[in-house]
Amino acid sequence: MSSSDIQITPIKQSKINSVDFNNLVFGTVFSDYMFECDYKDGKWQTPVIKPYGDISISPSARVFHYGQAVFEGMKAYKDDNDDIFLFRPEENFVRINKSSERLAIPEFPKEYFFDGLTTLLNLDKDWIKKGIGNSMYIRPFVIATQPAISASPSEEYKFMILLSPAQAYYAGEVRVIFSEKYSRAADGGVGFAKAAGNYAAQFYPTKLAHEKGYQQIIWTDASSHQFLEEAGTMNIFFRIGDTLLTAPNNDRILDGVTRKSVIQLAKDNNIEVEVRRVSVVEIKDAARKGTLKEIFGSGTATVINPILGFSHGGKEYELPTVENSYASFFKEKLMNIQYNISEDPYGWRVKI
Amino acid sequence: MSSSDIQITPIKQSKINSVDFNNLVFGTVFSDYMFECDYKDGKWQTPVIKPYGDISISPSARVFHYGQAVFEGMKAYKDDNDDIFLFRPEENFVRINKSSERLAIPEFPKEYFFDGLTTLLNLDKDWIKKGIGNSMYIRPFVIATQPAISASPSEEYKFMILLSPAQAYYAGEVRVIFSEKYSRAADGGVGFAKAAGNYAAQFYPTKLAHEKGYQQIIWTDASSHQFLEEAGTMNIFFRIGDTLLTAPNNDRILDGVTRKSVIQLAKDNNIEVEVRRVSVVEIKDAARKGTLKEIFGSGTATVINPILGFSHGGKEYELPTVENSYASFFKEKLMNIQYNISEDPYGWRVKI
Ligand SMILES: Cc1ncc(COP(=O)(O)O)c(C=O)c1O
Ligand SMILES: Cc1ncc(COP(=O)(O)O)c(C=O)c1O
Repeated sequence: MSSSDIQITPIKQSKINSVDFNNLVFGTVFSDYMFECDYKDGKWQTPVIKPYGDISISPSARVFHYGQAVFEGMKAYKDDNDDIFLFRPEENFVRINKSSERLAIPEFPKEYFFDGLTTLLNLDKDWIKKGIGNSMYIRPFVIATQPAISASPSEEYKFMILLSPAQAYYAGEVRVIFSEKYSRAADGGVGFAKAAGNYAAQFYPTKLAHEKGYQQIIWTDASSHQFLEEAGTMNIFFRIGDTLLTAPNNDRILDGVTRKSVIQLAKDNNIEVEVRRVSVVEIKDAARKGTLKEIFGSGTATVINPILGFSHGGKEYELPTVENSYASFFKEKLMNIQYNISEDPYGWRVKI
Repeated sequence: MSSSDIQITPIKQSKINSVDFNNLVFGTVFSDYMFECDYKDGKWQTPVIKPYGDISISPSARVFHYGQAVFEGMKAYKDDNDDIFLFRPEENFVRINKSSERLAIPEFPKEYFFDGLTTLLNLDKDWIKKGIGNSMYIRPFVIATQPAISASPSEEYKFMILLSPAQAYYAGEVRVIFSEKYSRAADGGVGFAKAAGNYAAQFYPTKLAHEKGYQQIIWTDASSHQFLEEAGTMNIFFRIGDTLLTAPNNDRILDGVTRKSVIQLAKDNNIEVEVRRVSVVEIKDAARKGTLKEIFGSGTATVINPILGFSHGGKEYELPTVENSYASFFKEKLMNIQYNISEDPYGWRVKI
């Protein structure tokens, strides 16, 4: 397929002038166009790009009843020359199909994904604003559309890509609570997939955490609650002394693109990094001894998100303020690559 | 609210004559009407009943991205006098709100639920066919509709009830495999809720089971895979000698209405029943010794579903053919109550 095979329905008029790009609420404003591709009769049909708007769907579509849906989150960045870049987009493409496989959803073809994405971004390029922190959040997702409510995989699907302009995401002061009761994912479950249902499952425990004054939960393993795994939409790093620790990937943890980039950058910048199980006990001990220097999250939406304190077993632990924090080091390194400010020895930056 | 407050949009013409009621495929045929009630501005709005058909919804509705959705499954039965009955409907009402709470969805009001349901069933009463095995499958569900793709609870929802006529569900010869690798639910997770995402998570492992010749998986606990919990849409009972065993409810297992009815019937019919953890080892031992007489599933769709054999650790175990099986005993008892054939000392049958 070449991008000329995508059927494009033009908008009548752009909405862009009605958008206040200095006051964007994350995930609530969408660009003029959206990408859509249906799966039926055993294959993906001709993709279309059309004006962003409501879809018509059966109330018995399986996605509503059985949560058969997966998604991705990625971003496009614009540099001072109006060139547009993606960050390791191949990773997101591979991951959505890995998620799909686990949810019994058919694989989406690579050409459709990339032709669709680049055509869409080109149509909506004026929606991507320059300036560090500004970006276009990209949301590819697949939903099961077959109108049948027996509990089995759908035979029809819709793959879509939405674009939502985003500003620098300032999460505010983030204090977290280590989970002692609730869990995000089971061994042998779907935690490693960006399965829709994984997220709703976190809402209620997160609401309880908010009520106690914590912005996020750090999930622990469901069997023992003794090992720290990841946050709701971020992987988690701990700095003890000058060593960086993060949990290994397993079938409960999302294999984050930002996480693997941080690990690579650490290695190449002489920061010792240990990818291994991280226990609650060791983090609490290090906090007491004063050797716990930083905790931060990594993810596409926030890049790197420093965490100011945590709670466990009813006790509060504050993190120190450190000069030359790893958090700011990695954030700058990553954003310099993403915004075409620095060299990119890794080939992570992809111009579209 | 009284049912007169529900706004009804009449159908132009019934589809009923186009339906072959002797060849229904479960969950694919829907009645003329559907019930719909939206939540916004912090409250449930006036419910409507309208012709069954597609809904218009934003592609950024949170249900598509985060699986914030729960459902119920219940049935209506018609007796020879054309009276219509529900079976323990209060249980389903309570359970959907329990599911909703865990998924951070606002509670649905009781009057709306029952007025909606009875009004709907009365409008579509010709779709409910007499005769043992025939029924109207009822699917209440709630989906998150707010068009915002940040990972947090929706502020808008749609509650719907669909009706799908069903015939006696013959599942065919059912052989199962005890799960050794995959899991359905985590401790501290959402397994006890009828959360949409729980079901899609089972599709892939179930597909693998099908390929090996097993119709269903009996899920084991995610931590050790040593204890038998439930099947994809059924609770599970084991008969060793004359004793009935079933796993206790916990936060991984759906608290089935059929299950609790079977336990009650067992107690009142001098069948010893032990509600306790059931280990894989003990079931395999009993099978080898010949004391394992029956395994059966219980659920609204199939009522009671006998299981002919199971597999674990690469070994096959066949169940004997027993006279006066518990499976048929409970099935008959339950259906006699459901179809208004026998007395109902429990008040389980509710005439509408
Ligand atoms: C559960 C979870 N963990 C981690 C991440 C971070 O992954 P990435 O760096 O690829 O954005 C995300 C989201 O993006 C996520 O949903
Ligand atoms: C996971 C699960 N277990 C058990 C059951 C049986 O419950 P009930 O008897 O209430 O139908 C169902 C479905 O209905 C279910 O989805």
